[in-house]
Amino acid sequence: MDLSRLRREARDAPESGIVAVMNYARGKEGLIPLWAGEGDLSTPDFITRAASESLARGETFYTWQRGLPELRDALAAYASALYGTTLAPERFVVTGSGMHAIQLALAALAGAGDEVVYIGPAWPNFAGAAGVNGSIPVEVSLDFDAARGWSLDIDKLRAAIGPKTRALFVNTPSNPTGWTADEATLRAILALSRATGLAIIADEIYSRFYYEGQRAPSFHDVMEPEEAILFVNSFSKNWAMTGWRVGWIEAPQAYGGVLENLIQYSNSGVAAFMQRGAIAALQEGGAFVDAQVERAHQARDIFVSRLRATNRVALTPPEGAFYAFFAVDGLEDTRAAAFAIADEARVGLAPGTAFGPTGPRFLRACFHRRLDEVEASADRLAAWISRLP
Amino acid sequence: MDLSRLRREARDAPESGIVAVMNYARGKEGLIPLWAGEGDLSTPDFITRAASESLARGETFYTWQRGLPELRDALAAYASALYGTTLAPERFVVTGSGMHAIQLALAALAGAGDEVVYIGPAWPNFAGAAGVNGSIPVEVSLDFDAARGWSLDIDKLRAAIGPKTRALFVNTPSNPTGWTADEATLRAILALSRATGLAIIADEIYSRFYYEGQRAPSFHDVMEPEEAILFVNSFSKNWAMTGWRVGWIEAPQAYGGVLENLIQYSNSGVAAFMQRGAIAALQEGGAFVDAQVERAHQARDIFVSRLRATNRVALTPPEGAFYAFFAVDGLEDTRAAAFAIADEARVGLAPGTAFGPTGPRFLRACFHRRLDEVEASADRLAAWISRLP
Repeated sequence: MDLSRLRREARDAPESGIVAVMNYARGKEGLIPLWAGEGDLSTPDFITRAASESLARGETFYTWQRGLPELRDALAAYASALYGTTLAPERFVVTGSGMHAIQLALAALAGAGDEVVYIGPAWPNFAGAAGVNGSIPVEVSLDFDAARGWSLDIDKLRAAIGPKTRALFVNTPSNPTGWTADEATLRAILALSRATGLAIIADEIYSRFYYEGQRAPSFHDVMEPEEAILFVNSFSKNWAMTGWRVGWIEAPQAYGGVLENLIQYSNSGVAAFMQRGAIAALQEGGAFVDAQVERAHQARDIFVSRLRATNRVALTPPEGAFYAFFAVDGLEDTRAAAFAIADEARVGLAPGTAFGPTGPRFLRACFHRRLDEVEASADRLAAWISRLP
Repeated sequence: MDLSRLRREARDAPESGIVAVMNYARGKEGLIPLWAGEGDLSTPDFITRAASESLARGETFYTWQRGLPELRDALAAYASALYGTTLAPERFVVTGSGMHAIQLALAALAGAGDEVVYIGPAWPNFAGAAGVNGSIPVEVSLDFDAARGWSLDIDKLRAAIGPKTRALFVNTPSNPTGWTADEATLRAILALSRATGLAIIADEIYSRFYYEGQRAPSFHDVMEPEEAILFVNSFSKNWAMTGWRVGWIEAPQAYGGVLENLIQYSNSGVAAFMQRGAIAALQEGGAFVDAQVERAHQARDIFVSRLRATNRVALTPPEGAFYAFFAVDGLEDTRAAAFAIADEARVGLAPGTAFGPTGPRFLRACFHRRLDEVEASADRLAAWISRLP
C-alpha cells in the first residue's frame, strides 16, 4: 500500500536494531536473553498489591494530570534524601514511562529543525524520539580506550553546539557504555549550558546502579536550585517495573504548567492505581533496590572477568548501569554476530549497530540477572569467542 | 523564572478551560459534577480482576510494542462484529489512551506548518495536540439551528482544505454537541478525502452511545478496505475505564510498522496487565455497555426535557455521546456562568469557551450518571435559569 500520505519523519523513524534480533531468536530453546534493558525479577509483591488494592477500591477515574499529590510528595521525599538536598513536590510531574518523560522534555524544548546534542554511543530512543518530533539529533561520541574505557572530550561537546542547538541530552550512567560522568565533567557540561543558554535533559535513570559508591554523581551535586535542567526518570529499573510504563520528570517549578499541558495533550495522565504501586515502590522499596544493585555488582564482576579472560575482548568494568558493551578482536559485523551468537552460543545480545555511529564494533549484554545465568552466559560467550578464527 | 528556553509551541499550549472550573469548585459540598467526560461508575470487577490476576502472575516485563497479540485478536473480533465486516488483527495497535492514539495519528500525518482540518465545536484536546506538534488546527464549525440542532455544511469543509492540509479529523458522535454524521455525510467526507488525497482521523469513540440505533453510522459502513482512515478509539467510555489510559488505533495494515515505531519513541507500549483488563472488557463487557447506554438514553431524555421546559434553553436531544450542549437565552458569558452555577446551583458544568470559536454561547453537561442525580441536577439548573433576568 502507498504510504505517501504519511509524514516523512514518521516513515523514516528507524526500527529498533535490538528488536530485530529479539524477534529472530525469541523463545529459542535454552537461550539466555541479555538483549533487553531489564532484569529477570518481576515486580515485588508489595508494589503489585498496592496497585491491585487501588483497583479494588475503584480508583479508576480521571485523576490529576501531573500525578497524584501523594506520589509527587513521595518523589520529592525520595529524591531529597538521595541527593541530600530539599526538592519540592512542585518540581515533579508523573509521566507514562521514562520514554514519555523524554518525549515531553523534547516537546518542551525543541521543534522542527532544532538540533539536540547528545552523548553517544546511546540507547537509540532519544535520537528516535527527536527525529519523530522533527528535530535533529546530533551525536557527540565518547572516546574509547581499551585500557581505560570511555571518556568525554568536553571540547567535542562544545564544538557540536551551534546556533540551532536547543538542548543537551546527557545520560549518565550511560546505556550502553556504563560511562559515568564524574563531578568535574558534570560541572563542565553545566558551565557549557550556562554559557550557551541551553537547557539540559538529564537522564540519570541508572543512578542507583553504580558500583563505586551509593549512587552516581548527579547534576544535583553541582547545580543551583531552579536551573534549566529537566531530569527524566523511571520506575522501571530500580523497582523491576519495566512493564508498567511509569516515569517522572523533575524540573524547575516554573515549568510545571507547561509540562502539565504537554501531558494533557499526549496521554492525559497516568492511571491512579499504577501510581499507588509507584508510591509503595518509593516508600517501601529501599531494600529491594539495594539487593538488586548488590547482585548486579557481582554479576558485573563475573561477566567482565570471564569475557576478559578470553584475551580477545576490549571491555573495562562499567562504573554504572547494568550492561557490558564490548568489542571482540577480529569481529567487524556485530549484527551478523548477534544472530550467530543466538544460534550457536544461545545467548541473546544487542548488536552495537543499534547504538549509533560508534556502536557497530561493539555488542551489548545486559548482566542484570541471576548469577548462575550470568556465569553460564559468560562461559558460553567466552567459548564462542575463543573459537573465532 | 524565565521560560524563554522552552519552545514557543509548548509555552503556548492552552490550559484546558474545563479544568479551570473543576479546580475552582472540586469538592464543593453537595455539588453534582457534570463537567468531565466520564460517568459515575467505576470499572466493573471482571475487568479489574483480570488486571490484578495478571499482576499477581508477574506480567510486569516489557511486552509487544503494538499490544499483546491476544488483545489485538480481541479488538479485531469486537470491531468485526460491531461493524459487520472482517477486520484483521494486523489493523490494530494498542495505545496509552485515546489521547495517545490521537497524538500518534497526528505524528503519523502532520508536522510543523501543516494544517489539520477538524469539525467544531470540539473537545479541545485535538487542537491542543496539533498545536503542540507544531501543526495548525483549522476549525470548520457545524451550523446550529435551535429547532433542528447541529449540521455540517460540506461546502464549508471543502473550502477549509488548502495546499497545506494533511488530514481531516472527524469526531462523530461529537463531543460536545452530540452531532452524529449520517451515512450520506460520511460518504461526502470520504469523497472529499479521496478527491484531495487527505487521510482521515476518525474519532468514533462514542459510537456505542447512540440513541437512534445499535451504534452510530461509521466510516466502516462506507469505506473500501485499507483506505487511508486512522480510527482512534479508547476503552474509557464503553467500559468505565477512563482512568486506565488504554486506547487503540485501527488503520491500514501497511501503516502498522510506522505506528509501532511511533509507539516505541513515545511511551514504548502499554502495561501487559492493563491489556489483560482490556481483553476482559472486550470479551465479557457486552452487557455492561448495553446497560450503560440504556441508562444514558434515559438520562438524556430526562435532562433535555427538564431544561427545555424552562423555555429559555436552546437544546435538541443529542443523537449520540452523553453531553447536553446548550445555550441559554440572555446568557453571554458562559465562563462566568459556569462558576456561578457551581456556587449557586451546585452543578458542575464545562463552559463552552473551552470548545472553540462557536462554543462560548453554550454550556456542556455530561449526563452519564445515576438517574436521580441527573434529575436533581437538571432541576437545579432549570431553577437557576428561571431566576435569570
